[in-house]
Formats: sequence, structure tokens, C-alpha cells
Amino acid sequence: MALVTLTTDFGTRDAFVGIMKGVIASRAPAATMIDLTHGVPPQDVFAGALVLQHAVPYFPTGTIHLAVVDPGVGSDRRALCIETATALLVGPDNGLLSLAAPAPAVRRIVHVTDARHFLAPRSHTFHGRDVFAPVAAALATGTDPGALGSVVTDIVRLAVPPIRTEGRRIRGEVIYVDGFGNLVTNVPESALAGFPHGDVCITIAGARLRGIRACYAAVAPGDRLAVVNSWGLVEIAVREGSARDALAAGVGTPVDIETQP
Amino acid sequence: MALVTLTTDFGTRDAFVGIMKGVIASRAPAATMIDLTHGVPPQDVFAGALVLQHAVPYFPTGTIHLAVVDPGVGSDRRALCIETATALLVGPDNGLLSLAAPAPAVRRIVHVTDARHFLAPRSHTFHGRDVFAPVAAALATGTDPGALGSVVTDIVRLAVPPIRTEGRRIRGEVIYVDGFGNLVTNVPESALAGFPHGDVCITIAGARLRGIRACYAAVAPGDRLAVVNSWGLVEIAVREGSARDALAAGVGTPVDIETQP
Amino acid sequence: MALVTLTTDFGTRDAFVGIMKGVIASRAPAATMIDLTHGVPPQDVFAGALVLQHAVPYFPTGTIHLAVVDPGVGSDRRALCIETATALLVGPDNGLLSLAAPAPAVRRIVHVTDARHFLAPRSHTFHGRDVFAPVAAALATGTDPGALGSVVTDIVRLAVPPIRTEGRRIRGEVIYVDGFGNLVTNVPESALAGFPHGDVCITIAGARLRGIRACYAAVAPGDRLAVVNSWGLVEIAVREGSARDALAAGVGTPVDIETQP
Repeated sequence: MALVTLTTDFGTRDAFVGIMKGVIASRAPAATMIDLTHGVPPQDVFAGALVLQHAVPYFPTGTIHLAVVDPGVGSDRRALCIETATALLVGPDNGLLSLAAPAPAVRRIVHVTDARHFLAPRSHTFHGRDVFAPVAAALATGTDPGALGSVVTDIVRLAVPPIRTEGRRIRGEVIYVDGFGNLVTNVPESALAGFPHGDVCITIAGARLRGIRACYAAVAPGDRLAVVNSWGLVEIAVREGSARDALAAGVGTPVDIETQP
Repeated sequence: MALVTLTTDFGTRDAFVGIMKGVIASRAPAATMIDLTHGVPPQDVFAGALVLQHAVPYFPTGTIHLAVVDPGVGSDRRALCIETATALLVGPDNGLLSLAAPAPAVRRIVHVTDARHFLAPRSHTFHGRDVFAPVAAALATGTDPGALGSVVTDIVRLAVPPIRTEGRRIRGEVIYVDGFGNLVTNVPESALAGFPHGDVCITIAGARLRGIRACYAAVAPGDRLAVVNSWGLVEIAVREGSARDALAAGVGTPVDIETQP
Repeated sequence: MALVTLTTDFGTRDAFVGIMKGVIASRAPAATMIDLTHGVPPQDVFAGALVLQHAVPYFPTGTIHLAVVDPGVGSDRRALCIETATALLVGPDNGLLSLAAPAPAVRRIVHVTDARHFLAPRSHTFHGRDVFAPVAAALATGTDPGALGSVVTDIVRLAVPPIRTEGRRIRGEVIYVDGFGNLVTNVPESALAGFPHGDVCITIAGARLRGIRACYAAVAPGDRLAVVNSWGLVEIAVREGSARDALAAGVGTPVDIETQP
């Protein structure tokens, strides 16, 4: 029984996602569907790519992940199916799938062109319904990715901005803000070797925090803290509050982590 | 295996929809449930009717569509089950189901009255739980619509306001605003015969746009455009923005489409 | 086929809930999942407890209810599995499960400690993914609750604040505000014996309302009213509007219900 996840920036106010599910249910009646989220900020391809990157590993091998954050819908941007060691990813060729499909894990990338798998007529404004959902349904019923089009290698790839480590200092930045207002940085826990969690000093948006805490409950409600979050990344938070609002910070805000000499 | 969709104005903040699903799961354990949307603007029966109209065609024949936008709950408004050539629709008799059930497609309309299919006791404030969900479950387990009550013909019907075509001019209006702020008009693509997409001049809320574009990506981010949207209707949009906000327009705003002589 | 419901304060903007479902789908592929709501106000354990209390009775016996409103995640607060006469409840020991598990209905309470059922490594910030989802999956595949840890009796219990009945007056308060802005009080319909619905006078936030109406449609749009809501509690509402906004009221606002002598 195939499992299909859906990730979009369509929100939940309209029936766009419901319609995509109707297409899948029509063409792959036995498929099970799970929403990853439809709350990706509109047109924010990089945020969608991060969401996929950190969610895909928690799904069964062979899961089909359908993702549509697609400001170029109707243009000549390509439709892709990427087969990795553990998953099948379907979506536009704008980088959305790329963080969940690092090069070493990729088995095959197919530029999806075979219109027999699309809805007809095909709109220029809703390929989620007319292209990506029916392609996901085709995969869910056992269609080989190779039957969808031709193999390619040159896809659009996004990258998490690198951190810079300079002696006792790590320079990073905020790369994602979640719905609670937590500020997720690009600093992975692995970069903190030699930076004892209790001793580091974190500077962000003019504020200074001491130490990386074990959990949110380590500080009082309303207090600021740094933690290693569920993505394995350093996160700046306010317990039971919003660090985004408290610090007027967002994606791109620099973060410095230092140890004392 | 029966498929049941759910469409409401209940939002996702509370458990109203979850409770309806519990009732269905209790009475029709094998039914599969898909949310169309629960973001219909509160009490906006016409918006709900449009959502159903444009979503139902993408679902398998025989799908049960349960819809609850029901400002008259607990009053003497009737509960309906409408059988069309392709679907079973369940909801209040306030026009909500009517656009998805145009007269030529209707096979049978049943005024649902048989309380054996309802929950007991039945509240006066939540017929989604006490009437419509158990009726959908009854249909999902094979109950014939005729067993739910008596056949009627005189239901509340809503209508999309007609366009007026006067020579080189089409006068329409905005009938729906989606979650992105796109302004959906009542002008179908079929009305544009004789109005070359590239040449028309569109006037809305004091703004003038030239041409109907193939897709959002045909203009630069932040620019206004007209497209034929996924419902087959002319839509006024701002690429990666909100036409509702940019034009201070909404449902009822007039739209004129003209060709040059 | 096991049924698992999910209730959290995670919202729908991020993929937290989707990831929990991935964990369950990986470990209990045959489980069916239903969202109760993910819109519990952030960290509002009492609101989450009320939601569970009023939703659980509508699900089939044996349903597994997974709930995560967990400001103490990563601290020493315990993880619980509560077996009642009709359900299995999984979540943190902070009172969240307690209203759905009144003492007379409880068969067994297990302090969940056996890490073999958890994800490894286990984060300190997302036990929904690393502890509660895999435990729900274990139950869904038939694991006996007793295999998860040790039986306990001393859990955190929340209580709905009691009403006070003084002759012809009931003193209550608002305990929940739903997404429409309806003000749900702690006054159950059963307390109204001797208070004829048509005659009572309700005072809240300086406003006075006459009578408890049968349904919202009993008054004109925009008018205030009191009804017995779908939880069986007296609710103050504005038809097609928000009583929260109209009365500037919220959780804790006192409500008086009086009969004339």
C-alpha cells in the first residue's frame, strides 16, 4: 500500500490540497495520504526544502513525497521525480526537493514530460492538481519513474548557507522561523565540539545569551534561551513565547557563538 | 471502500471536525476521509458552494461529500442528501450543495428526516456531529439515500451572478477571494471567444491591466496580472502578492473586460 | 485496524505533526490516523484537556488518543499511557489527559519508561516525535500498556472550576473560547433544573442577556445570545460574530445566571 505525503504553500483556507487528494484518490485508490504541512510561507522554496529535508527521514522507505511550492508554475521550469535510496520525491525543479535529495543519496532524477500521466486539459496555474498529483498517483500504482520522462542530472540545487568557524567563534545565521517564532540557525550540534554547551555565549540581534540549554523548560516562561532543536540545529527561543517577536529577528539574522578563552 | 470528503467553515483551531470524523469512524470504520477545506469563511454559504462545485469533479464517482456551512443550524432549515450522476452530497438546505448539483445532474434529492440515522440526543448547535456525519456514515455503509427520508424537489438554489456581454465589453464581478488574495471573477474562459487574450483591457477597482497572461510567472514578482485560473475563470492576481490588498477589492467588486475596436 | 487520534498545540504551519505521523506510519503501517486538532492555544494544557474530554466519547472503543501540549518537554515530567474503559490515552503527565480519564473510568495508568519503544537518539525538545508517537505506534501494533513501564496512580489532575449555586443564582465562569469567539462556560445544562430556559437572566462582562435560546438562529445576525452548546454547557455567543470580541471576555470571565422570584 503506497504512502504519499503532501507539502505545499497552499494553506488550508481553500480546497487546493483537497482537490489534489481527489486526483490521487481517483487514480490510486489504495494510496494512503499524509499531510506534511501546507503552511510553507507562500513561494518560499527554501523553507519548503528545509521542511522536506528534516521530515523525509521519519517516513517509511519507499514513501512518495509530493511537494508544491511553485512560483514558476506554467513557465518552462521542469517537473521532476527524484528517486533516492529511501524515497520518491515529486515536484518542481526549483530546488524544493534538493535538500531532501543530497547527491550521494540520489539514484535517478527524471524530468517528467510524459503527458499521458497528466490531467487533460492541463492548466497553467495549478500543476499541483494537473501534473504533480497525477504523477504521484502513477508512482503509487507502481509506475516506474523511468516511464515518466527522461533521466537528467542538472537540477536546481539549494544549499544551506555555511557556517564559519574562527577559533573560538562560530558565525552562523537564522535559516528558518517556525510557527512558534523559534529562530532555527544553520549551526549543527556537531559544530559545537570544543564549545561546551554550558559555557558558550550567543549573540543575536543585539542580545546575549549564556549557554545552550537542554530543553525549553530549563528557563522560566518568557525567558530567552538557546537549545539544540529537533532538527539537530542550534535554535534561539523564548519559553512559551516568540523569539522572532522578542528579538525582531528573522531569516538571515546573524548569530555568533563564542567560548571564553 | 467508501470515500467521504468534509467541507466546513469550522476552521482547524477546535476539534469540531475531528469529532465529526470520530462519528464517521465509529459508524463506518472502513470509510476513508479527505478534507476538502475547513477554511470556508464563517457562514459564507456561497463561498462553500463554489468550493464544492469546483472540487467534486476531481473525486471518484460515488464519493460522499459532506458539507456544513450552516448558520441556520437548529432552525427549521432542512437536511439534504442529493444524489447526482457522480456523487452523493450531504448538508443543510441553504444552497451550499446546489452549485455542485446542477439540475441536469441531479438524480434524486432526499429531505433527510429519519432520526434513526442521527445521534441521540441531538444538539441544536452541532448538526455536523449529530446529523450530517452519521448520515454520511450511513451512506458510506451502503444505506440507500431513499431510506433517509422523503424525495423533494424544491431546494434552496444559489446562482453565480451572470456576466453581461455588450459588444466589445464583458461586465463581470469578483465572486471569490482565495487565501492568497487572488480575485476570482465570474467570467469563464468560454466567454472570451472574440476577446483575444493578449489584447483585452481589464478594469478593476480603478486599475487597468493589459492582456490575460498564460501564468503567474509571466510577470515580475509584485506585478498585477489577469489569468485564467484553475476553475476556468478569469482571475486578477498579484504575482507573489495579494490582489485583494493591492486593489482593496473583494467579492462584488466589478470587473470590465474590453477589446479595442 | 487501530485508530490513532492526534491532538497538539503545534499548529499547521510546520511539519511537526506530519513528522509524528511518519513515525507512526513507519512503526504501525496499518494504523489509521485522525487529527482532533492542532490548534490548541500554545502551552494551554487545560484547553487541550477540555478538547480531549469532549471528543473522546465520539470515537470507537479502543481508539488510541495521542496528545501533546507539553511545555515541560525535556524536563522530568513523566510520559503516561492511561487505559480507560473505552480508550488508550498517551501524553505528558501535566493534566492534559486527565479530564478524558476521570477516576471511575480509569483501568490502568502506566508511567512510560521503556526506551525500547522510543526513537533513538531522543531529543529534549520534541517528545511528540521521539516518545509519544512511537509509543502510540506500539499500542497500535498490539503492545500491552503494561509493557511500556510501571503502573502508577499519582498523576497530575486538572479540574473544571466548580459552579456555585446560591438560591436563584448560578455563579460560573468562562472556561474555553472556541475559534468563532464563542464563550463556553462551566455551567452544565443539568445545573439549570429549576432555571427555566426562557426566564433566566445572564450577566457577563457588564452585559445582560434574557433567556437561553434553542439555537444560534433564534436571534438575528449580530445579536448576542446564550445557548446550551454541543458540549452540554451554557455558551455565550454572537450570531455570526464573536462574543469574545463583542464582550471583551475570555477564560475566567465570571458569568451569573439568575431566575426571577
